[in-house]
Amino acid sequence: MRPVSILGVGSTPFGRHAGTPIETLAARAAAEALADAGVERSEIGALYLGNFISGPLNGQEVLAGMVADRLGLPNIPCTKVEGACASGGIAFRHAALAIATGQCDAALVVGAETMTHASGAEVTAALNCAMDNGSDGASGLTFPGLFGMAWRVHAARYGTTRRQVSAVIRKNKANGLKNPLAQMGAALTDEVIEQSPPICDPLQLYDCCPVSDGAAALVLVARDRARGSPGSAPVDVLASVQTRGAARIAGHADMCSFEATVAAARQAFAQAGIGPKDIDLVELHDCFSIAEVIDSEDLGLVPRGEGAGWAAEGRTAVDGEVAVNPSGGLLAKGHPVGATGVGQIHEAVLQLRGRHPNQVRDAEIAMTHNLGGTGVACTVNILRRGDAA
Amino acid sequence: MRPVSILGVGSTPFGRHAGTPIETLAARAAAEALADAGVERSEIGALYLGNFISGPLNGQEVLAGMVADRLGLPNIPCTKVEGACASGGIAFRHAALAIATGQCDAALVVGAETMTHASGAEVTAALNCAMDNGSDGASGLTFPGLFGMAWRVHAARYGTTRRQVSAVIRKNKANGLKNPLAQMGAALTDEVIEQSPPICDPLQLYDCCPVSDGAAALVLVARDRARGSPGSAPVDVLASVQTRGAARIAGHADMCSFEATVAAARQAFAQAGIGPKDIDLVELHDCFSIAEVIDSEDLGLVPRGEGAGWAAEGRTAVDGEVAVNPSGGLLAKGHPVGATGVGQIHEAVLQLRGRHPNQVRDAEIAMTHNLGGTGVACTVNILRRGDAA
Repeated sequence: MRPVSILGVGSTPFGRHAGTPIETLAARAAAEALADAGVERSEIGALYLGNFISGPLNGQEVLAGMVADRLGLPNIPCTKVEGACASGGIAFRHAALAIATGQCDAALVVGAETMTHASGAEVTAALNCAMDNGSDGASGLTFPGLFGMAWRVHAARYGTTRRQVSAVIRKNKANGLKNPLAQMGAALTDEVIEQSPPICDPLQLYDCCPVSDGAAALVLVARDRARGSPGSAPVDVLASVQTRGAARIAGHADMCSFEATVAAARQAFAQAGIGPKDIDLVELHDCFSIAEVIDSEDLGLVPRGEGAGWAAEGRTAVDGEVAVNPSGGLLAKGHPVGATGVGQIHEAVLQLRGRHPNQVRDAEIAMTHNLGGTGVACTVNILRRGDAA
Repeated sequence: MRPVSILGVGSTPFGRHAGTPIETLAARAAAEALADAGVERSEIGALYLGNFISGPLNGQEVLAGMVADRLGLPNIPCTKVEGACASGGIAFRHAALAIATGQCDAALVVGAETMTHASGAEVTAALNCAMDNGSDGASGLTFPGLFGMAWRVHAARYGTTRRQVSAVIRKNKANGLKNPLAQMGAALTDEVIEQSPPICDPLQLYDCCPVSDGAAALVLVARDRARGSPGSAPVDVLASVQTRGAARIAGHADMCSFEATVAAARQAFAQAGIGPKDIDLVELHDCFSIAEVIDSEDLGLVPRGEGAGWAAEGRTAVDGEVAVNPSGGLLAKGHPVGATGVGQIHEAVLQLRGRHPNQVRDAEIAMTHNLGGTGVACTVNILRRGDAA
């Protein structure tokens, strides 16, 4: 396997782009990434596009080929991959593999989703495509329901409080205020959070990420190519892992731990040859406030049961022991599902270049994490500042 | 790159399975392929699933993880890929790459689609997800419309007649009669074909493949592993190619040739180190009768302009110069979209094992071909009988 680097990044703002077709958003982000990398279109040897629900919400598939067509790429393999909320991370891993295994020297990763044009009922139905609908879906489960149950178990077992979980929201919303790509940054008080409308007890409005449109893109190259490039500072891919977990809630051994995340983190640390203490920042999958708590524990970054406590104590702040979601995360930056995993890597690259608007000081190693469905698909990546080797 | 072999195949019949969930069909085909290969579930290192429109038609995504869950596979990477009608072929290529590049020693490929439970209008809308809906779709185009136009151009340029094209239908429907997996084999006369209802002039009813449910699966292994296996006779993968073409009709240089097919065939012959005359049989993408004519020419198997004439002269029959669609093809076997490319390879494997119910005599080398959308995605594979090396 050849070493792989990220040479270019691009992104639309996450938020409302109603009226702009998904392929236009995707092509816009991709063109920005190509320009940032200083890589010619003719050099791109593969395109992977992460998308989840453009079929149900837009009646539009074949997005990988359509985006290549709009960009004027060569007649290369163009593949859409899907694994619910992990779709973007899966696209990244496949592009990294294409280079690592010598299939091509440069590859384009795109993640895209449009959702805000649809009604709330349409979005909920489309998101439920990520569930095993023969069992969990048929039982009336929704994703707020799943994470509401996980919260209850976490609270009962570890004594996690509403106020501690609110600290995750306050942190991410405040981080989002500093991020021009973020949809819903805000300065929130505990009172505002705790007086917000109930969604699915104990989840309230601010515990849930918004519905978003957006696209993000990355240009990956063989590391040798990156070192000779006149473009932006390269970021090295130390690990890119994809795992699966149980597809149904009844298959989970523990309601507040996802085995796909635990396995992916373990494999990623082994691939990278580092440990959790080496991670300066993580962009992880906080689709709900309690998801950040569980993910940070599953990734091994925070002791089991202490995820919310660490947030409340400021230990996951941008200047804390490990910066969790300095971008604002899904809660504040937004969650255009197929774009999210690619957008997280975009944020991590800016951090490792030292040019993030909410910069983690001396950031050298970053992690990103996606979790799809009820834990059925997971991706974890570890990235390092290119000059830190 | 390590050599790759196909060790096991499985398939549901193609046809009507209304009431059976898509993941059940997929798991059924996969379990059959695993048993056929004599490969343990614990040995499978990656799963690729081809599917096109389960989101719009079933409200069910994350099928790759769900199928792995039902089969009891390890916590391996499970990926759905999509490229419209080429989805199954794309899944196969990625599994072959996973083995060729040493990511794993055994991989599972699954293709699945369910369509017959939906209304005609729902199916047409879902199939149009394969079109660029900002341009071609907005113009009112449907896929019968595209291939109707292609037929008109072919007829004007090469003098292709209704009666010649009917020979493609008669051949494939007759082939389908011999295939127990086929949905709609039939003994048809020219009169029955020519008196069938118009669909989109000049296409009539029998020019169009049916709407189908079905799933197919393959177990791929490193060739060294295949040679020592007690299971079925292995089939070697000589080439697996994926290309893209124009996403919009206006982007095609020629209305009766698809550049994605031409490029994929050229690359596949180069990879395999053989030429068109070495192909004993091909399973190609006859979504419409005229598509077989064009595909057989684009693949270089039949001289340009003579595709329909060759069919009329019996030169593409099972005992002809090159057997085209001895399974019955999409026209007779059916077209559960995501399953089609995997099912074609299943048919080719049975031929190369010498155990097909419509056997091509002394079949040693087979080709399969998928074309997605209006030519935006294409896959071509070349397979060889394992003992013929």
